[in-house]
Amino acid sequence: MLATQTLPAIGIVQRTRKSPFFDATIQSGAQGFTVYNHMLMPIYYESPEADYWHLMNNVSMWDVAAERQVEITGPDAFKLVQLLTPRNLSKCKIGQCKYVPLVDENGGIINDPVLLRLAENHFWLSLADSDGLLWAKGVALGYGLDVTISEPDVSPLAIQGPKAEDVVADMFGEWIRDIRFFYFKEATLDGIPLIIARSGWSKQGGFELYLRDGKYGAELWNKVAEAGKPYGIAPGTPSGIERVESGLLSYGNDMTLENNPYEVGLGRYCDLDQPVDFIGKEALKAIKAKGVSQKLVGVEIAGERISGNSSYWPIQKDGVEIGKVTSSAYSLRYEKNLAIAMVAIEHTDLGSTFDIITPDGVRNGTVSDTPKL
Amino acid sequence: MLATQTLPAIGIVQRTRKSPFFDATIQSGAQGFTVYNHMLMPIYYESPEADYWHLMNNVSMWDVAAERQVEITGPDAFKLVQLLTPRNLSKCKIGQCKYVPLVDENGGIINDPVLLRLAENHFWLSLADSDGLLWAKGVALGYGLDVTISEPDVSPLAIQGPKAEDVVADMFGEWIRDIRFFYFKEATLDGIPLIIARSGWSKQGGFELYLRDGKYGAELWNKVAEAGKPYGIAPGTPSGIERVESGLLSYGNDMTLENNPYEVGLGRYCDLDQPVDFIGKEALKAIKAKGVSQKLVGVEIAGERISGNSSYWPIQKDGVEIGKVTSSAYSLRYEKNLAIAMVAIEHTDLGSTFDIITPDGVRNGTVSDTPKL
Repeated sequence: MLATQTLPAIGIVQRTRKSPFFDATIQSGAQGFTVYNHMLMPIYYESPEADYWHLMNNVSMWDVAAERQVEITGPDAFKLVQLLTPRNLSKCKIGQCKYVPLVDENGGIINDPVLLRLAENHFWLSLADSDGLLWAKGVALGYGLDVTISEPDVSPLAIQGPKAEDVVADMFGEWIRDIRFFYFKEATLDGIPLIIARSGWSKQGGFELYLRDGKYGAELWNKVAEAGKPYGIAPGTPSGIERVESGLLSYGNDMTLENNPYEVGLGRYCDLDQPVDFIGKEALKAIKAKGVSQKLVGVEIAGERISGNSSYWPIQKDGVEIGKVTSSAYSLRYEKNLAIAMVAIEHTDLGSTFDIITPDGVRNGTVSDTPKL
Repeated sequence: MLATQTLPAIGIVQRTRKSPFFDATIQSGAQGFTVYNHMLMPIYYESPEADYWHLMNNVSMWDVAAERQVEITGPDAFKLVQLLTPRNLSKCKIGQCKYVPLVDENGGIINDPVLLRLAENHFWLSLADSDGLLWAKGVALGYGLDVTISEPDVSPLAIQGPKAEDVVADMFGEWIRDIRFFYFKEATLDGIPLIIARSGWSKQGGFELYLRDGKYGAELWNKVAEAGKPYGIAPGTPSGIERVESGLLSYGNDMTLENNPYEVGLGRYCDLDQPVDFIGKEALKAIKAKGVSQKLVGVEIAGERISGNSSYWPIQKDGVEIGKVTSSAYSLRYEKNLAIAMVAIEHTDLGSTFDIITPDGVRNGTVSDTPKL
């Protein structure tokens, strides 16, 4: 990201939708926003660095309503969901979340949502930044499936960090400590309908509260802020620093429709032996058999502190382009520059070195096990 | 839009893609951006008001690369395109543009792109802000059509305003004056591959240059700026003021998937009698037969100058909600507040009045023939 002092302004119109927490985030000091799934999402409050330390040391609350849901119901709902992802969902329980890359017929990644199974034939796809709704609708229509697909009034609020569980337990009761990772429970809080999932886009632990009625946005936000006070809660956002340190991928940054799951380390989610002919099965078989020509790796970037890339940084070896940095940040935890990069396969061994062409000059890059991908 | 001085910052990462003109727009003084089709798009330079007058009095150049193209080729390309829109394309010529609302099986509007026919089975859909690519891909896959669908390296640059034609004629030759409205020609400019269309998102006349190779972004931008100098060209953007005055609709603002073409004045583009069973035909027949319960109208808002809505403003009659303002602006030309609003059908006659609930208080609204919808 560009240094905050140089950021231009963002225009706000109806089209850049506001989350149910929007007014509360402004009142809490949100200073910057992005647009994600046609919705404004805060990107920092105090500063990206200060927000990071709140997440790492205590607990942080995030408006991630922009993770819009695709709700799929109807007799063919399971059939459609299994058609959309290479992941084998035959053992997916009601009350379980699954990370499900969606791919097209060529194996190109459409989106990488988290699936929530609410009932036998009732699912949510909690989207990354692309209109997975339109893809699901188009496929369902063409295949003649008996499903209803819509964007429900559901807005996640994430509570992340080492003290997140204490905050959520104080709000809902000790029973929430028994929710396993990537499972969820339905609950209400003073009449506010919610789903409580142990999930979230950090590796610091925590929960996502899926608000099921937008009119309670401010009320829920304030209740979380109040419950978090004893634990030093602060408003925050998905952290570009923490997620690079932790090797969490971002759709649109680290992968696009141009990439297949094997290039981006998601091959482990592709079950090519399952009986179902999910979309892209033949393409993925061919890709796997042939092997990939490039893949994502963790990279350490030498030299002084970087600001992080705001577009791809080319990677060269002996003057020849061999890849690009997709995401990067100065790691406050490891006190070095870290990156995620897509690199030609012959340069992906641990310790491989190359040149990274940043706007401020050439830096040395080394394939590293931090971030771990 | 919020007053510019109160706008928060926008985050810039790879995911918020940069247009080929991005660096040039920054150098030209772009101060604010939105995200449109996952790409940064400038929203103002000097000020929305100053930019407006450049457009109205002289000529304005816009980075509208965020109007991303869906390229559809292959033996079934025409078949797919006709499936996607209720508009009858049987007479669409090569070299012609057509405004083609895309609807789903319920008649809900997916996007409202401009179609360009480059060859018998070669089309571009120049998108509004939704992933029409994913919808087209999903439909094509499900229907088993033999097409290739992709986002090509194509980036429109609009030249709009009363002196636009002179600028484009100076650049390409007098022959461009013969291009009719919503027709286009292929051309090159010092080796830069382009399509020149007489089109654009204003009613001040002009052209869109579809750049067909992003590496020439800065060069094309500078050539237009240079050619426009004698005519007082200024960098600008699609104008929220002009388009409300002119009654040009904006997808995501004035219509969404929740709306059908008859509600938003696009019924004239729906040919329900054509032999092709396009998607949504039965639904649109039922909607048309029943009549709509709400529709978009032009509205005049009483009282002092408004800033324009940044989200829907509720509309009430005798305390009962009967609609919402979808877009609005203070009209510099007519020197009054104008709006586009979705209103219950029984309150849509010219001269109907109601209350508009703005964040700053209640205003009187009157259905008006300006803007004309």
